[in-house]
Amino acid sequence: MNLDKFFNANNIVVIGVSRNPNKVGHIIFRNFIDGGYHGKIFIVNPNADNILNHVSYKSVLDIKHKLDLAVIAVPSNLVLASARDCKKKGIKDLIIITSGFSEIGNVKGENELRDYLNKNKMKCIGVNCLGIFDAHTKLDTLFLPRYRLKRPKEGGISFVCQSGAVGSTILDLATSEGHGFSKFISYGNATNLDESDFIKYLAKDKLTKVICVYIEAVRDGKKFMDVCREVSKEKPIILVKGGTSEEGNRATLSHTGSLAGNSLVYSAAFKQSGVIEVKNLQEMVDAAKTFDYIIKPKGNRIQIITNGGGYGIMATDAIVKNNLKMAELSNEVKNVLRKQFSRNVILNNPMDLVGDATTEMYGAAINSCLMDKNNDILLIIALYQTPLLTTDIVDVIIEANNLKKKPILIVSAGGEFTEMLRKNLEENKIPCFTFPHQAVDAIKCVVEYYKN
Amino acid sequence: MNLDKFFNANNIVVIGVSRNPNKVGHIIFRNFIDGGYHGKIFIVNPNADNILNHVSYKSVLDIKHKLDLAVIAVPSNLVLASARDCKKKGIKDLIIITSGFSEIGNVKGENELRDYLNKNKMKCIGVNCLGIFDAHTKLDTLFLPRYRLKRPKEGGISFVCQSGAVGSTILDLATSEGHGFSKFISYGNATNLDESDFIKYLAKDKLTKVICVYIEAVRDGKKFMDVCREVSKEKPIILVKGGTSEEGNRATLSHTGSLAGNSLVYSAAFKQSGVIEVKNLQEMVDAAKTFDYIIKPKGNRIQIITNGGGYGIMATDAIVKNNLKMAELSNEVKNVLRKQFSRNVILNNPMDLVGDATTEMYGAAINSCLMDKNNDILLIIALYQTPLLTTDIVDVIIEANNLKKKPILIVSAGGEFTEMLRKNLEENKIPCFTFPHQAVDAIKCVVEYYKN
Repeated sequence: MNLDKFFNANNIVVIGVSRNPNKVGHIIFRNFIDGGYHGKIFIVNPNADNILNHVSYKSVLDIKHKLDLAVIAVPSNLVLASARDCKKKGIKDLIIITSGFSEIGNVKGENELRDYLNKNKMKCIGVNCLGIFDAHTKLDTLFLPRYRLKRPKEGGISFVCQSGAVGSTILDLATSEGHGFSKFISYGNATNLDESDFIKYLAKDKLTKVICVYIEAVRDGKKFMDVCREVSKEKPIILVKGGTSEEGNRATLSHTGSLAGNSLVYSAAFKQSGVIEVKNLQEMVDAAKTFDYIIKPKGNRIQIITNGGGYGIMATDAIVKNNLKMAELSNEVKNVLRKQFSRNVILNNPMDLVGDATTEMYGAAINSCLMDKNNDILLIIALYQTPLLTTDIVDVIIEANNLKKKPILIVSAGGEFTEMLRKNLEENKIPCFTFPHQAVDAIKCVVEYYKN
Repeated sequence: MNLDKFFNANNIVVIGVSRNPNKVGHIIFRNFIDGGYHGKIFIVNPNADNILNHVSYKSVLDIKHKLDLAVIAVPSNLVLASARDCKKKGIKDLIIITSGFSEIGNVKGENELRDYLNKNKMKCIGVNCLGIFDAHTKLDTLFLPRYRLKRPKEGGISFVCQSGAVGSTILDLATSEGHGFSKFISYGNATNLDESDFIKYLAKDKLTKVICVYIEAVRDGKKFMDVCREVSKEKPIILVKGGTSEEGNRATLSHTGSLAGNSLVYSAAFKQSGVIEVKNLQEMVDAAKTFDYIIKPKGNRIQIITNGGGYGIMATDAIVKNNLKMAELSNEVKNVLRKQFSRNVILNNPMDLVGDATTEMYGAAINSCLMDKNNDILLIIALYQTPLLTTDIVDVIIEANNLKKKPILIVSAGGEFTEMLRKNLEENKIPCFTFPHQAVDAIKCVVEYYKN
């Protein structure tokens, strides 16, 4: 199914643009203006002539231009009428933001709308959703003010999200951490298009490297499994399931009008379909940026390089717990480094360069380990608090990473100084983590994915 | 054992202050100057007359003043001689930063030193450590530059840490998040004073509300269990054990010269001693700030208030997974709020105020739930991205928290705007978390602690 229009429409109409700057339709319209979207934007409000210096039309039918996408933010009792107007105007693609359907018990209203859309072969994202954000085209229907929710830069992560709040907060968080996105889709009640449709579409999207999904219930289990089985061969799908407990499950009914179902059944189905299910949103963000940034590892043998013994030990514990392999440092590398380093350096795995490690030592260690046939992945713990580790450690790591020999992941915990170096590394597509277990959890996802 | 001198000495000598500004002794000395420590500081370097405009003595014995604490940063082969000089000078309390003992196989050197210290009833923090930082007195032997490692403000968290790197990075991280500390102790090889001595001392420290411990091996199991059993009755002890895997365990030997031992045996011993063992450093920081900030809960029934359905559901899942209780919202509260709120608000647990929740609605919901006899703890999810949630939500939460009726914890994920509000809340001692599972894990620690 081609959903290109949703992300790259030329002429868009926003139906239900209030004069009140706090109302959904108004915010969406203003975001189109502020965001510098390339297409033409029209607005409909039967009670206004002009909003933010744009002509307001009484009806979508009054607009002379050909339109290819409608964003609908009218009250729920007017949605069906708006959809009918769109049909008459020849608009087949709708984003319906409006809530007040099955999630509050109005199943009849939603069924009526669904039947109408299906009968007329119209495609709809929503109802009860935030709609979409495309970091490349800048198409943006999120009705959340830009000063509260920063929009991300361009990148390889796409996010399909049943819950608007989950999606938008993660978008905001990931943006503040500097990660880039391709497409964001909040689809709410999935009245007519569902998660499977979006996942299938994103598989073909060249700008998407990794697909993240937050889901409470799958509309059509067989369709979902069929789609994911195919898509996961091309791109990783990382998923968080809300409503894994009976109580949480019950709460999903009033959230997006769907019942979550047994979580063990779900987990088994995810696994069979090649979907990477993670425990929480933090693991999702960590895994997503890792997939977006790193090259494919050749195996699961991890070499740790550290300047803090405790961190090396915690990373080791996490590796063993996750059934990954501690690499065995080759004798060649040991011999080379033994000549260069003082005797208190521990040439093993973890390789502990200890507290007085210099940038040069890191450089030598990293480059030797990149050549070592005994490992597949480098986990570098660089604690920047020590005085001899100069800031050009960042350049050393970036240069090593640019060789594209093996995936390199960084762990560094700390405050402002550490944060500054982290941003620098991540801008160069090297995933950084605060705690060892985070990095190892992300490696686990990557290794499991490429194993299949 | 009284360890007051280590944190509040009047006259301190730093032995081994190099002229080289990158050397440990030099950095320690400069930090004493920059940190504005109240006591008098003397320095020893036999090869210099003057360093940073301070007289440098050839030997500690040349100093005429009475001294009550020595910080030793000389090469390892000179440590014993320095200790002997200290003894002659009447200094009984030493912080020995120097490494190069059992952690690199020099067991003989360390045993010799230990025997000397024990025979002469001298107390020593170290060897192979960072020493201490006291946020109240500002006594600071951390040889990490202040621009790389920010020092924390005063607060109720104390941290006993075998690994200097683990300790210092967490100090840096927690400082950047605005948390306050009482005492920080990095004790390395535990040559003569060990973790149990510090934990016992901190139990009596009125400024310490919660004790954090990172440990790879316990020196004396029986002593540790005896101490913790007593101390945990007075204050929570939160612990991360490094070396829980066989491989990680092996790495501990070269880190602090100790073998970690079987982690299941450790875990059982921790549990018996009332120690709260957490899985990683993130859980430690989360639990520590929660203990430092909140009042004691009366039970384990949690009421969730949210403006994002998905977050409410994930919090519910985490509560159930942790064997905590979802509170049942009382009919009284339902009736009161039903009159005030529109029909799309879900009055249940989670209470979902939905995306157009206002600050006033949060105020009404929080205050009603504080009166509700059916819950013990409020978990408030406030996603600040929505336009109607004004920034004075912070004041509403702070006022409610000031009533000191029930513990209140906040979840809010996002970027800069969210971060700004988070800082505001945490300055007012309300613990904030990015993800629901973090808050619930922290609640779990608190509930388990007070249950016993």
